Amino acid sequence: MTRRLLLGAFLFHPGGSHVSGWRHRTAEPHRHVDIDYYARFAETAERGVFDTIFLADGLYLWDRFPSGVDHYGQTRLEPLTLLSALAVRTSRIGLAATISTTYNEPFHVARAIASLDHISRGRAAWNLVTSRYDEEARNFGGDDHLDHSLRYERGEEFVRVVQQLWDSWADDAILADRESGLFADAKKLHVADHRGTHFTVRGPLNVTRPPQGYPVLFQAGGSAAGQELAAATADAVFARPLPLADAQAFYAGLKERVVAHGRRPEDVAILPSLRPVVAETERDARELAEEILASTPPAIIVEDVAHSIGQTLPADPDAAIAFVPDTDIANESQSPNRRVARLLSGERLTPRDLYAESFWESVSVGTATSIADDVQERFESGAADGFVVQALTQPYGFESFVDLVVPELQRRGLTRTAYEETTLRERLGLTRPARVTPTVVSA
Amino acid sequence: MTRRLLLGAFLFHPGGSHVSGWRHRTAEPHRHVDIDYYARFAETAERGVFDTIFLADGLYLWDRFPSGVDHYGQTRLEPLTLLSALAVRTSRIGLAATISTTYNEPFHVARAIASLDHISRGRAAWNLVTSRYDEEARNFGGDDHLDHSLRYERGEEFVRVVQQLWDSWADDAILADRESGLFADAKKLHVADHRGTHFTVRGPLNVTRPPQGYPVLFQAGGSAAGQELAAATADAVFARPLPLADAQAFYAGLKERVVAHGRRPEDVAILPSLRPVVAETERDARELAEEILASTPPAIIVEDVAHSIGQTLPADPDAAIAFVPDTDIANESQSPNRRVARLLSGERLTPRDLYAESFWESVSVGTATSIADDVQERFESGAADGFVVQALTQPYGFESFVDLVVPELQRRGLTRTAYEETTLRERLGLTRPARVTPTVVSA
Repeated sequence: MTRRLLLGAFLFHPGGSHVSGWRHRTAEPHRHVDIDYYARFAETAERGVFDTIFLADGLYLWDRFPSGVDHYGQTRLEPLTLLSALAVRTSRIGLAATISTTYNEPFHVARAIASLDHISRGRAAWNLVTSRYDEEARNFGGDDHLDHSLRYERGEEFVRVVQQLWDSWADDAILADRESGLFADAKKLHVADHRGTHFTVRGPLNVTRPPQGYPVLFQAGGSAAGQELAAATADAVFARPLPLADAQAFYAGLKERVVAHGRRPEDVAILPSLRPVVAETERDARELAEEILASTPPAIIVEDVAHSIGQTLPADPDAAIAFVPDTDIANESQSPNRRVARLLSGERLTPRDLYAESFWESVSVGTATSIADDVQERFESGAADGFVVQALTQPYGFESFVDLVVPELQRRGLTRTAYEETTLRERLGLTRPARVTPTVVSA
Repeated sequence: MTRRLLLGAFLFHPGGSHVSGWRHRTAEPHRHVDIDYYARFAETAERGVFDTIFLADGLYLWDRFPSGVDHYGQTRLEPLTLLSALAVRTSRIGLAATISTTYNEPFHVARAIASLDHISRGRAAWNLVTSRYDEEARNFGGDDHLDHSLRYERGEEFVRVVQQLWDSWADDAILADRESGLFADAKKLHVADHRGTHFTVRGPLNVTRPPQGYPVLFQAGGSAAGQELAAATADAVFARPLPLADAQAFYAGLKERVVAHGRRPEDVAILPSLRPVVAETERDARELAEEILASTPPAIIVEDVAHSIGQTLPADPDAAIAFVPDTDIANESQSPNRRVARLLSGERLTPRDLYAESFWESVSVGTATSIADDVQERFESGAADGFVVQALTQPYGFESFVDLVVPELQRRGLTRTAYEETTLRERLGLTRPARVTPTVVSA
């Protein structure tokens, strides 16, 4: 079978992945709670024969700094509710919801995802996150977010419990036999009776086994603990955009971890983020990207940089930063922080400098040809199994990718031109897992 | 304004409210996780111009007795996921999900219901339950269900937190002003900062205020604590079916409690359960009901009675019961238990006797005319503001009600013949609540 490049359509902020994407002239910022707004996104992705859409999420409103409320378009619909409605508005595309294992219960999550998988006839996926913001803890009775290693330990136990709950019913457990009056075959029901460090869950689930067996599991494995969890449990990993050599190293390292967990390298697809800004000419694309960057309010620039380097800063985005190193930010994310490294070098840098550097490092600016060249090179040189497309503006940025870049990728035979397989799991080339847990007759 | 009889369409077991409704010749018991099965139910209710559909739920599989697994059709889809899909498959009808306040977090529930309200453009409702089964506790880290009074205390605090979270954003808080770059007016954002007995929740919610302000709140207020919670917070109460005089007493008592809480009697609609078995003639209706009762497997009869009287019983449904009173069953439900009272009288009774008595007491068997007569009498004599229709079989029992009884109710001018108002709240004659909580600028 030809290896095929996988495509996910990511929605970060509803207005686009750039924080002020909602200011773009094509944006519809008053429609961030309108189902038709999201249906257009999903339908566009389906038109581009994407494998899945992928909704970011957070269990909080980020109001640590005033700019979070003033300028971010953070209000949104809850992902599972939204995806369930989109399941009815689409027919073939995968539906991936971001769900935290820190502030949820496995029984609820197993049930809701199983339901989405039934409603969509095998198209559900979840992106496991462990919630790293204090703002989230404070909506669930805590003060601070959990320690990094504890979050991942809890996350792994969470996945194992959810999988056991999905295994509650054998595929042929429902008899529904009018004559005998037997609805189910009790011998084909599994009681999890899980008693672990973080969870005690008896089961069984009151939803039959999902069409995919286990709906597809995404993770964003940045840290070592995140990569370990992904290597042990995930079907696909969503990765940060990196320079080619770094992306190849990340790819190779993660596939090694997968093998170390007794799995095949192809059992886990690695899908770096792709943040395209595409136009008919290189110059137009560059101008469009400049325009998007310039739409960022100064308060966001200052407060974004202040947050990432762990100190408050004066309001002027063009004032040189007097950096004071602080190790307390380490727990926010284990990802290497390039901005801190740059500041430690002693060079005179302003918030605008650092913000712009991050912006240009993260985006792929060019024509359909040049972006397809980059995508193809990464796909063919061990840097990616596919990409999660994070358009900076909605709907424009994403629709221009689908209209310009996707046909070029299809022309090169890299991506699909029509849907074939029924379930998302089949489409990703993954087998439907057998029930791993033994059947135990309910007491 | 003419007082209008309200109608809800209740789905208890997916196969119908009778436990073996799935055995009816029209039933489709293999489709209990099929979205089209539920869409047909919702579309039928919308054809009958019902105010709302209403999904029962439980966070468990009831396997205390073997018959729970063998004979009940307990597998189902998770209600919020299901209703969100049905929001797209319907256009006017209300969508009520049963949600437990004992095994959930207010932030998640506020978010999901607000999302459903946006997706459905103002048709969301929730039926607050407090979860009374040990089977539920064991799926969420506990051993036994919470004590009755504690469950209701937690339930009331839960509702107040959810309402504060729905009030996070003033209706005009979103500016989405491209020119200034201001997405929101921070002065119109409320931070709940709730610190109570059961919950500590900061907020604000990352979903804008629901179209209905507060989506409609249903409760089933059987016990005194349940009635108090309903009188204090609910928009509508789902009540057990009772003989006329008892139903009038319940109605009057609950309306008094509502007034005692400083609300108007009409602020809380009282909707008893109606379990219709309708046919063209009284004789046909009686035969149909007999047939449904006869479809109940003996093991269910014995174990249902055993459970309700709190003791194990021999397998023969026709063996006289040797009753041993046991007060431990009191916490399961504060509702008076007629079966125990009957057994205490000393009469010779079998499980089949008691099961049949409960069945016949709970159902309304007759022609469209006789059922409409009963409904009208109850509506006009202070026993009901409307009814929650619980057909014993699906789809047949419900469709025959919509085809036969609804036109008779419409002909009498009791129920609506077309949808007028946009939101469920308006349709129930309720005002959209103002934000009760003061706006506090986010810190």
